[in-house]
This record gives sequence, structure tokens and C-alpha cells, in this order.
Amino acid sequence: MASSKSKVAIVGSGNWGSVAAKLVASNTLKLSSFHDEVRMWVFEETLPSGEKLSDVINQKHENVKYLPGIKLGENVVADPDVVSAVKDANMLVFVTPHQFIDGICKKLAGNIRQDAVGISLIKGMDLKPEGPNMVSKLIKDSLQIDCCVLMGANIANEIAVEQFSEATVGYAENKPTADEWVRLFNTNFFSVSAVQDVEGVELCGTLKNVVAIAAGLVDGLELGNNTKAAIMRIGLNEMRAFCKMLFPSVSDATFFESCGVADLVTTCLGGRNRKCAEAFAKNGGKRSFDELEAEMLQGQKLQGALTAKEVYIVLSQRGCLQMFPLFTTVYHICSGRLPPSDIVRYRDHVNISAL
Amino acid sequence: MASSKSKVAIVGSGNWGSVAAKLVASNTLKLSSFHDEVRMWVFEETLPSGEKLSDVINQKHENVKYLPGIKLGENVVADPDVVSAVKDANMLVFVTPHQFIDGICKKLAGNIRQDAVGISLIKGMDLKPEGPNMVSKLIKDSLQIDCCVLMGANIANEIAVEQFSEATVGYAENKPTADEWVRLFNTNFFSVSAVQDVEGVELCGTLKNVVAIAAGLVDGLELGNNTKAAIMRIGLNEMRAFCKMLFPSVSDATFFESCGVADLVTTCLGGRNRKCAEAFAKNGGKRSFDELEAEMLQGQKLQGALTAKEVYIVLSQRGCLQMFPLFTTVYHICSGRLPPSDIVRYRDHVNISAL
Repeated sequence: MASSKSKVAIVGSGNWGSVAAKLVASNTLKLSSFHDEVRMWVFEETLPSGEKLSDVINQKHENVKYLPGIKLGENVVADPDVVSAVKDANMLVFVTPHQFIDGICKKLAGNIRQDAVGISLIKGMDLKPEGPNMVSKLIKDSLQIDCCVLMGANIANEIAVEQFSEATVGYAENKPTADEWVRLFNTNFFSVSAVQDVEGVELCGTLKNVVAIAAGLVDGLELGNNTKAAIMRIGLNEMRAFCKMLFPSVSDATFFESCGVADLVTTCLGGRNRKCAEAFAKNGGKRSFDELEAEMLQGQKLQGALTAKEVYIVLSQRGCLQMFPLFTTVYHICSGRLPPSDIVRYRDHVNISAL
Repeated sequence: MASSKSKVAIVGSGNWGSVAAKLVASNTLKLSSFHDEVRMWVFEETLPSGEKLSDVINQKHENVKYLPGIKLGENVVADPDVVSAVKDANMLVFVTPHQFIDGICKKLAGNIRQDAVGISLIKGMDLKPEGPNMVSKLIKDSLQIDCCVLMGANIANEIAVEQFSEATVGYAENKPTADEWVRLFNTNFFSVSAVQDVEGVELCGTLKNVVAIAAGLVDGLELGNNTKAAIMRIGLNEMRAFCKMLFPSVSDATFFESCGVADLVTTCLGGRNRKCAEAFAKNGGKRSFDELEAEMLQGQKLQGALTAKEVYIVLSQRGCLQMFPLFTTVYHICSGRLPPSDIVRYRDHVNISAL
């Protein structure tokens, strides 16, 4: 019965969104439980040639702007209207920049299938003093749907060229739905597994950026692999403690998944937060993160320094700074109160909140 | 009462042994519960100048052969006679090459203080089909003493120049003794903590070398950070599973310590196993690990390839190869049965044992 087949829509078409569309579209062709067509919402842009981005994607089956050189599959159909893109779909993949998701959900509310479920590939969230504004929860609450997350050591361009990688699906309660997402994303070069810990999986993607700042500072100070590994380990442990403070249900096992230790490693080896923090330390903290971001990232945004501040506010309000000396020190370094070299003296700064 | 003070002897004076002597000697001067003097057994050598190594160490307070340029402290006294070196000591630090420890213990048996305790800094052990020959157990059984271990992301030369680092003390039951070892080693740049898991801590130091081979293959294949992080994560999980198979008491928490994830990161970033495996992959597996070791390591020994074989034998005998596809694939690649590029196809080789 054709109508029992699942239909997938991708909400977003940037670099990672286009790779997600490619992954998913290769599987919907293979798996009989999915409709072949994958509709992808494209935020319309006019290219320098005068053509519309969505038209070019539909002609060339390639996102010439955000993922040039990679064929997405002929069954990926670009649609510039987000409501139209999702209307027949029961599996919605959210992969937009973080700041757009609220507005998109407002547009979609009331315009999706009754049986729809969602998954968020969006890394980063707002950390408010009262707790994090999780993207998956925002989607869940605005659209009244089940929402999983997919996170991991996922540099989009490496997955686009089919280099081996892994990802973790985090779910709250609905295991059969999580298994369906795993089937949809898993390929022979992209190994996906599911864990029942949506908050842990999603928070890892945000907090790792704070650790990447610390790792980048170590690189800029030229302190060697021992020190870098130590700082990464301490950061991983503060990530665990922070997650558990906010959500006691978060499991240690989550940090052994791709979303945990693997994403941390990738981000601390490459990654823009690491890179800017390295430059920051090399300049002795004399040039701000804002300045370095503008100069080095060509419009991409640096999340680590902002997240460090948000983490600091959460910890201050809860009176828990002492339990998180590394996170606290990263914030004080980013804000110019401590020199970059103090990253390895993080234990001395547990009582520095009154600075 | 002076006689209640602890007295420390270092059994070994290579690169890491000399750094350990420096660390310990700085603390025995500061802490009133220890005798100042730290006696260090030196395997006597005649230097090109004609002088004896132990004499030069005692004149210059520097191990000119294995740790040139670093002052050990005037309270480190080199002693070429191992029995004499330990005779007054109640805290024995074992830090020799792995293959010497059995012979040394035979010499020491019956010649140590009744109240002596030991700690092993020796990484690597023999993995026999019936289980691992743990160095700490060998010391414990031969000398009839309590024996802890100290492991971590500890590149000796980086610690020698006081770059920030961490280490983990693993103990079996005796927490007060473990705390005493922590006091002896901990400094403001070398952060030590104790966990009750001597087997987990000690096995990490051996098994990480197998993962480092896998990581080096990924580097040689130029597959990028995503893939490398994924392979490291899978390796960490096989380390956990292997440790628990041999010792069900091993705790997950141990892998979040310096001996676990941090040592793995250090070894997979730098490290000789990684380096030789990278060269092996670049050569398409056409030059053996033995050949590369001889050419690249100037006499240092490569443990990863040997450990991969020992792990394989243990797993074969227990019929557990399927649970360890990455370890199994590393062995088959090292032994030339599979090409290096199959490291990312490790999941295809779970049934390859009959090759």
C-alpha cells in the first residue's frame, strides 16, 4: 500500500543540509518503506548568474552554492516554499542555522501532517540561566511532534565525499521512530546508532565548542599533545557534569558515542573555534574573538566564546562555578579578564567569579 | 620521629624514569612525611667520555644520556646496584623497560623492606591467551607487596619541561597507600588522581597502542578528522569491552581518566605507533611494520602491532572476534592479510578469522 510509505522532507539546504539530503535520498531509493522523492526546502537566493538557487539545484541536482561538486541525487527536489516542501512529508529533517528555527516552526505550525515526526541536525542552542533552550524541544513544542536529534563527528564536506563517519541519534522515548531515523540515515560509510538520551546527545554538540576554545588556546601556546589531551579530557568531564546538572537523566554512556568523545576530538583537532582560539592565544589575548571571527571565518559564526559566556551565566546563577573550573576559566580568558596562558592554571580560578 | 618518614627509590633511570625521579624529588623536599633523598637505580653504562653514567648523574644532577638538559634535583642519588638502591626504601617506583622487570624482581625478592609498597609506571604487558601478564601483578607476586600503577597522557619530555599534564593512579584495595602515591607525584603542573581499578588503568596503557595503529592508518590514507575521530571512538569502546571481558570489575569511569581517553588522544595524535602505521598505509602495506620500525624508530620498539597480535590470539581462543571488529581488522592489516584501506571497512571483517 503506497500510502503507508514514509515521505521525507529536509528543512534546510546549507552545507550540512545538502549532505543530509544526499545521504537520505540514497536510502529512500534503496528502501521500499520510503517514497523515493525527498523534498528539500531551499531558502531562495539569486545566484550571480541571475538564476534562482532552487532552479539550479533541480536542473543540476547539485547545490552549486553550498555543496558544489557533489550530486545530491535526482530524487532530491528543491522547493523554495517551506510549507509546500513539508506538506506531504511525515519525516521532517531540520537542518537550518540555529537562529532561523523559531521562525520556521511558526510558519509550519498547523501546516504539517498529523502523523509527522521530526529530527534536528542543528548544533547549538541558547543556554538561558533557567536552562538550555533545546532546539529539539522548541520543534517538539511548536509543532506538537516527537523530535529526535542527530549529532556526531560530522564534518559535512568529508561525509559528502563518502569518507567513513558516524553519528548518534538521540531519542526521548520512541524507540521505533528512532530506529526509523537510523534506517533513513545509515549508509555503509555513515554509521548511525540510537541512544535514549535526547538531551545528552544535543547538549554535547553545544558544549564541545567551549572545550575546543580551551584546546585552541593550548595550541596557540604551543604546549604539546600531553597538555592538549589533558585539557580535552577535563573538558569532556565538565561536559558530563554540566549535562547531568541540567538533566539528571543524561547517561555516561552517551559520551562514548559519536556525539560525545568523537565530536569532541574532531572539533578540537580542526574546527573554527579551535582555530580562532589558537590565533587569540598567539596574539596574547590582545585581539578579541569578535575581531578574529570577522577576519578568519568569512561570515561563519563562532559559537564557543558565546557558549562559554552562556555556560558561565548558568553556573553563576546556580552557584556552581567551583565545580567547573575549566569552563569558568575559558570564559574569563575569552572576556579578557585572564591571559590565555591561564588555561593550564584553571584550578587556581575556581573562586574568581567575583572578579 | 624520623624513622616514620617514607623513603622513596626509583627502580629505573631511562627517559620516563628520570622524569619520575625529578617529579618525586621535588615533592620529597617539600613534604615533611618523606625523606628528602630519592635513590635511583641506574643500569650502569660507560659514556663515550669514559665516565660512568651513575657518576655523571651524581656530579651534574642530570641524566646526560636519557634526559639531557634537565636538572633532576640534588636529592636524587644514582646507585648502580639495584639491591642497594632499594634497601632503605619503603616506596618503590618501578619504571624500567618492560622486558627487564621480571629479572629485577627476582634480584629484589627477599631484599626489600617488610613494609615496602610498589607502583609501576611501566606501560605494556604480555597478553597471553589465558589473560594478560600484568606488570603490577608480577611485582606484587614476586615481592609480596601491594602494587599500584600510574598511567596517563605522559610524554616524558613534555613533563620534564613542566608542561601541564595529568596522570591516574590505579589501586586494588589500599586507598591510603594510593593517596600517598598521589601526594608523592602530584605537582602544580602534574595533576594526579587515584581510582580503584588497577587492571583497567594498567590495560589502557597497552590497548591504546592498537587504536593508535588504526588512527595512523587513517592518517596515512588521508581520510580526515571525522574518520580519525570515529576510529578512535570505536577503538576506545573496544578497549572498554576488552578490559571488562578480562576483568569484570573494570569500571567505565576509568576511561574518562587520564589513563583512558587522554592517553588515547595523545597517542593517536603523536606517538610512534601512529607514525609507523601512517607510513605503512602510505606504502600500501608493502613494507612491513618490522622494516618501518627499524628505519623510523632508532631502536625504540613498536608495541602496537605486537599487541594487536596478542589481542587477536586472546580473542580467537575465547571465540570473541566478532565483538571486536576493529581490533581484529588492525591485526589482519598489520599481518598483511588485508590492505590498509580496509581499516574503515572493519565491520565487514568480523567473520574473517578463518582467513
